[in-house]
Amino acid sequence: MNYQEAAIYLQEGENNDKFFTHPRNPKALAAYLFAHNHLFYMMELLTGLLLMMLSLCEAPAVPSLRLDVYVHATLELLALVMVAFELCMKLRWLGFHTFIRHKRTMVKTCVLLLQFVEAIVVLIRQTSHVRVTRALRPIFLVDCRYCGAVRRNLRQIFQSLPPFIDILLLLLFFMVIFAILGKSYYFNLQYNKSYFNTLENSLVSLFVLLTTANFPDVMMPAYSKNRWSCVFFIVYLSIELYFIMNLLLAVVFDTFNDVEKMKFKSLLLHKRSAIDHAFQLLVSRQRPMGVSLKQFDGLMRFYRPRMSARDRFLTYKALNTSGAPMLSLEDFYKFYEVTGLKWKARRSGEYWFDDLPHTTFLIFKGINLLVKSKAFQYAMYVVVAINGVWILVETYTLNSGFSWSRFVPWSYIVFLTIYGVEVLLKITGLGPVAYFSSGWNLFDFSVTVFAFLGLIALAFDMEPFYFIVVLRPLQLLRLFKIKQRYRNVLDTMFELFPRMASLGLTLIIFYYSFAIVGMEFFAGVVYPNCCNTSTVADSYRLINITYGNKTVLEEGYYYLNNFNNILSSFVTLFELTVVNNWYITMEGVTSMTSHWSRLYFMTFYIVTMVRHMQSQVFLSCMFVLFCPCSPDENGIVFEVEVSRDEALETLELYKQTCPGQSSLSSLQGVLQAMDRSGHSSLVYLGHRSRTKSDLSMKMYEEEIQEWYAEYSRENLPQPDQSQEQELDSPDPNPSPFPEPQLNSQTGPHSIN
Amino acid sequence: MNYQEAAIYLQEGENNDKFFTHPRNPKALAAYLFAHNHLFYMMELLTGLLLMMLSLCEAPAVPSLRLDVYVHATLELLALVMVAFELCMKLRWLGFHTFIRHKRTMVKTCVLLLQFVEAIVVLIRQTSHVRVTRALRPIFLVDCRYCGAVRRNLRQIFQSLPPFIDILLLLLFFMVIFAILGKSYYFNLQYNKSYFNTLENSLVSLFVLLTTANFPDVMMPAYSKNRWSCVFFIVYLSIELYFIMNLLLAVVFDTFNDVEKMKFKSLLLHKRSAIDHAFQLLVSRQRPMGVSLKQFDGLMRFYRPRMSARDRFLTYKALNTSGAPMLSLEDFYKFYEVTGLKWKARRSGEYWFDDLPHTTFLIFKGINLLVKSKAFQYAMYVVVAINGVWILVETYTLNSGFSWSRFVPWSYIVFLTIYGVEVLLKITGLGPVAYFSSGWNLFDFSVTVFAFLGLIALAFDMEPFYFIVVLRPLQLLRLFKIKQRYRNVLDTMFELFPRMASLGLTLIIFYYSFAIVGMEFFAGVVYPNCCNTSTVADSYRLINITYGNKTVLEEGYYYLNNFNNILSSFVTLFELTVVNNWYITMEGVTSMTSHWSRLYFMTFYIVTMVRHMQSQVFLSCMFVLFCPCSPDENGIVFEVEVSRDEALETLELYKQTCPGQSSLSSLQGVLQAMDRSGHSSLVYLGHRSRTKSDLSMKMYEEEIQEWYAEYSRENLPQPDQSQEQELDSPDPNPSPFPEPQLNSQTGPHSIN
Repeated sequence: MNYQEAAIYLQEGENNDKFFTHPRNPKALAAYLFAHNHLFYMMELLTGLLLMMLSLCEAPAVPSLRLDVYVHATLELLALVMVAFELCMKLRWLGFHTFIRHKRTMVKTCVLLLQFVEAIVVLIRQTSHVRVTRALRPIFLVDCRYCGAVRRNLRQIFQSLPPFIDILLLLLFFMVIFAILGKSYYFNLQYNKSYFNTLENSLVSLFVLLTTANFPDVMMPAYSKNRWSCVFFIVYLSIELYFIMNLLLAVVFDTFNDVEKMKFKSLLLHKRSAIDHAFQLLVSRQRPMGVSLKQFDGLMRFYRPRMSARDRFLTYKALNTSGAPMLSLEDFYKFYEVTGLKWKARRSGEYWFDDLPHTTFLIFKGINLLVKSKAFQYAMYVVVAINGVWILVETYTLNSGFSWSRFVPWSYIVFLTIYGVEVLLKITGLGPVAYFSSGWNLFDFSVTVFAFLGLIALAFDMEPFYFIVVLRPLQLLRLFKIKQRYRNVLDTMFELFPRMASLGLTLIIFYYSFAIVGMEFFAGVVYPNCCNTSTVADSYRLINITYGNKTVLEEGYYYLNNFNNILSSFVTLFELTVVNNWYITMEGVTSMTSHWSRLYFMTFYIVTMVRHMQSQVFLSCMFVLFCPCSPDENGIVFEVEVSRDEALETLELYKQTCPGQSSLSSLQGVLQAMDRSGHSSLVYLGHRSRTKSDLSMKMYEEEIQEWYAEYSRENLPQPDQSQEQELDSPDPNPSPFPEPQLNSQTGPHSIN
Repeated sequence: MNYQEAAIYLQEGENNDKFFTHPRNPKALAAYLFAHNHLFYMMELLTGLLLMMLSLCEAPAVPSLRLDVYVHATLELLALVMVAFELCMKLRWLGFHTFIRHKRTMVKTCVLLLQFVEAIVVLIRQTSHVRVTRALRPIFLVDCRYCGAVRRNLRQIFQSLPPFIDILLLLLFFMVIFAILGKSYYFNLQYNKSYFNTLENSLVSLFVLLTTANFPDVMMPAYSKNRWSCVFFIVYLSIELYFIMNLLLAVVFDTFNDVEKMKFKSLLLHKRSAIDHAFQLLVSRQRPMGVSLKQFDGLMRFYRPRMSARDRFLTYKALNTSGAPMLSLEDFYKFYEVTGLKWKARRSGEYWFDDLPHTTFLIFKGINLLVKSKAFQYAMYVVVAINGVWILVETYTLNSGFSWSRFVPWSYIVFLTIYGVEVLLKITGLGPVAYFSSGWNLFDFSVTVFAFLGLIALAFDMEPFYFIVVLRPLQLLRLFKIKQRYRNVLDTMFELFPRMASLGLTLIIFYYSFAIVGMEFFAGVVYPNCCNTSTVADSYRLINITYGNKTVLEEGYYYLNNFNNILSSFVTLFELTVVNNWYITMEGVTSMTSHWSRLYFMTFYIVTMVRHMQSQVFLSCMFVLFCPCSPDENGIVFEVEVSRDEALETLELYKQTCPGQSSLSSLQGVLQAMDRSGHSSLVYLGHRSRTKSDLSMKMYEEEIQEWYAEYSRENLPQPDQSQEQELDSPDPNPSPFPEPQLNSQTGPHSIN
């Protein structure tokens, strides 16, 4: 019986750590515990962020943040040393053999060594050389525990690459065929425009045409000579853009489904296997069929050190559906479904102000009824709608003499007062807890508070905060609450937000790598009036032009889209992501460097395309998965009834095993609540929000049974063997774990 | 027992005609048969096409096709009279009451009346007035039987509209908010550029920004003043383009899934109900539990008049899986799965040249082995690859003095000879039937034949056919056969082709309607050097411009994107579909007409967006449905074994019931084949390609059982009642159907 090892198995199951990284000796255990806590994770994250931030200060730096070579190279070395320290800790935990086998860690080590050497070279030479390897820095960030979602995202992108690349080749093949056709045809018919004069230009024109960025323009010279020449372009676009691009999306969609299913399967079976391992460790030889509350409690004190005794008890009750004195393995398989629950007694009273004196109660009750009435809600919608129309009219009639700093319209104050009163009424009527538990209320609240802050900023004339005032039309978003569909869609989106954030982070990591490469090669190559030899010279021109008899300053702003520092690079890359007119940037840079620069831009386009399709497919699939549920299905709820006797019994048990005050008080709270309500039992509700795993469970219901059957067929002989081993041989692998410290209240961290 | 009525029920089930349109009296039956044959369908199609084609000749006409008002108005009246005639036929069949209730037909009638009035007005006034109603002409085409797929497509688009519009409103809402922000902010900071100077311009700029068509340009003036102003645009695009647009796709995807499932369910149950009706009519009172071969044969002679007696017999055998003397209802439910099968005796010999003399046989056998060998295949791939490289090099070194008409390179002839020999070898080795049954071989064959035709064209100096020569790089597409994935993907695409064609047709119908509206309002409004007051004047300018000291002719070609005739309109609309730079056309037209013109272009953008998303989702879903099958699963195969006795028995039966020579000869063929092969039984294979219905059947396997259960719960009491009615009351509704004409060989058409 070893609670700590069981807890570690369960942790590994949760984090999807493979079991061959399971600590095998006391040193490894210490290292495991050291490397698995939030402090360490946070250090990893901060080191990763620091390394990435450094590119703000390294040449070519953002002007206001420029640091001396000396300073930033030292900072870099410091961060690298920290990474090295983290890696050493990992080495201690994994052992040399496992460490070598772990691909991601090995890549990280190599990159680390490279960066070390380069940082030292920079320090010695006192100047930065071409450091393209900085593009690899995001590896340090991605590897840290908190970026697991980004890592999964990246893995998914790489997994869907092979079929994607196949179809991409088909796309390129048609491009080459049409380039050959284009060159022959246009050559033949003497439309000798620069779009198709050489094979390279043909290919580039058709690549840009694929992105539609040069569309009618590339066709126009030929179209003006012969109307039927549009057929060439229409056929090309129909095949490439509307057929093969859709095919690409279809292939990504197809692969995504498969990959998702396989991933879910392996996660599910890994968790099951972790539970099996933990269960084997928990059951004692006297009682081989089950886990008692005492054992479960011991486990949970390692697995979730911060969980209160009451919650541990309730979790046990939630698992124990059969009511038997022990948890069977079948019960225990639901472990991961119940550990995340937040427990709460089902309210005996209806309102938060039930305990107040009678008169106050009546007042609050009145406010509550008012706030909950349809009339109040619709009155508020009307106010918001009027406000919307008001803002529109105001903006429409806004004249040039107007400035926010001099004049606050009275309507602004009136509406703000109404919103303020509404927020106060709702908070008092519903109670702060109920009020803030709704996302919509939180939104209302923050918009109103921001508007007030804006007003204060205006009153005290704090110029930089004016933008807050401008945000007031956001109030209008509340109107979308009226319709059920919007509520569903927006709630779903809210649930999907973490996932979308990880998609965004993945994008930023791609941006970072491309920005570094761009800065190393293209920093400072474009400037006003450059690129005069290219076809896009106009967009970079800053010159006086004469139209007939009128002279104007024609300003082509594209020289602003440069790679002069990391922030500009990000903006430039965003513009490339949006695709429109991206070829102007490409041609500008190409004309000032070499033809090979196009490779950079084309690669970036393709990478963005993969990622964009990936996220489209991802969002669509998730949406279909999450959306069809009715609003009350938004969470998973477990119900547990606790009787007075049970509570007393448990209290006794805890008094024996862990007599610490804090643990007992939470259980005594249960008894007090029973006394107050006068009932002999109390119902607790455990609540958590739906996860993708819950929905996938429902979706693959049948397959899961097959997987489990398959899994147990493969694994059944092994436990038997190991049991025999345990019985026969006197402990061949001495466990690194200390004997269970039943009386200690500390979690895994305490060992250090 | 009434074979014809049963056949009509089955037809209605197949065509998804509702049963309330079932002909109730002899006159209706005659009308039904008149309106349900290919001649009538073809007439409908041609009338629809003629009406649509008319817009080529009506003012503003394509110059070379211009017709006199007199002529085209008369043609139109003629076509409309034909439509009216078709409608009268339908009225006769449906009866006035049902006719009124049928929505689509009513709409068609109203449009017809309107068009009649207008055509007459045109004839009287001798000049065309503003005839926007011509945009409704596609209704006549869409309503015809052959355009069923387009109709379903349109219905699907309309069904997915409500949720789409909801999200679109969210999109527009954010657009308004950002327009207000943009106007206030830019006003405030004095970036008084024309993009945001009024609320209308703000909105238009942001709408165009949503399509990304003006992207970096709209940001540049502000960005050059303050680098942080890019945040406004990045936030806007992130919300609108990357969030809400993806949400739109997700919603379309979600709706699509639901709509597809519901459609499949209703079709399936409708078919089942049709089979129930037909079965009730077929079973006789003596034998209430089954359908004999004689009855089935009588049914099939009405349902598929052109099917041979052998195939009717084989179809019966395929249905009759239990081997009982009668078909039970359960057997009969598979009716629609087996009626489309093509029957073919399983080849006793292996090669098509088995019957030839021995020496010839050996030669052919040699060719067969050669053609099937891996070595031959890879040799051909190598030839194709060399040809590809050759063409690339040739095109690369192509100089301006070269012209196809003067000089045919020897390499062209060499490669063409190799391909020609390959085609001949394959045809002789595999046999023409086996060769042409593969899509890839067909492709090879046609490309090679086209290349030969091109060569002949060159030899005889036929200038307009040179383009054929240019198509030769298409041969390279064969290289994609090497990899399994490409074969799968391209085969799937080939299977999906009809569906994609119907998507394309839907697009053309949208184009047509928009083209008519465009021509009525915008014909002739843009011309060179127009639009000088707009922001896009440059794109329409045809003028000498002085850059410093150099004067060049700057040609803005956008005046070519006009609505001057239907062909130009189609090209312009295609450019608008591609989206890039679409606002130049919009602003040009707007500056020459009124601000309301923007509505036309924006509506077109949104319509195209819906359709594009629809087809993306459609293709992805279909692809996932069709693709995962292995290549040998590409078709549905039924196997039926016919013994000598059975064949003789059936022949006897047919001699009694339909002694026509043609019907007997097909059965005698079976006996002859048995004699030749010397076996006492012969196996026939029935083959058809997979349809979506087969795959959906597999996909919704479980739901289908539920649906059937639900269906029979609802419908079981009714058949009982009707049976009782039949037994008790002496025929309350006299059937319009004549007694079964067992001896006639004619199908439903013969009645007229």
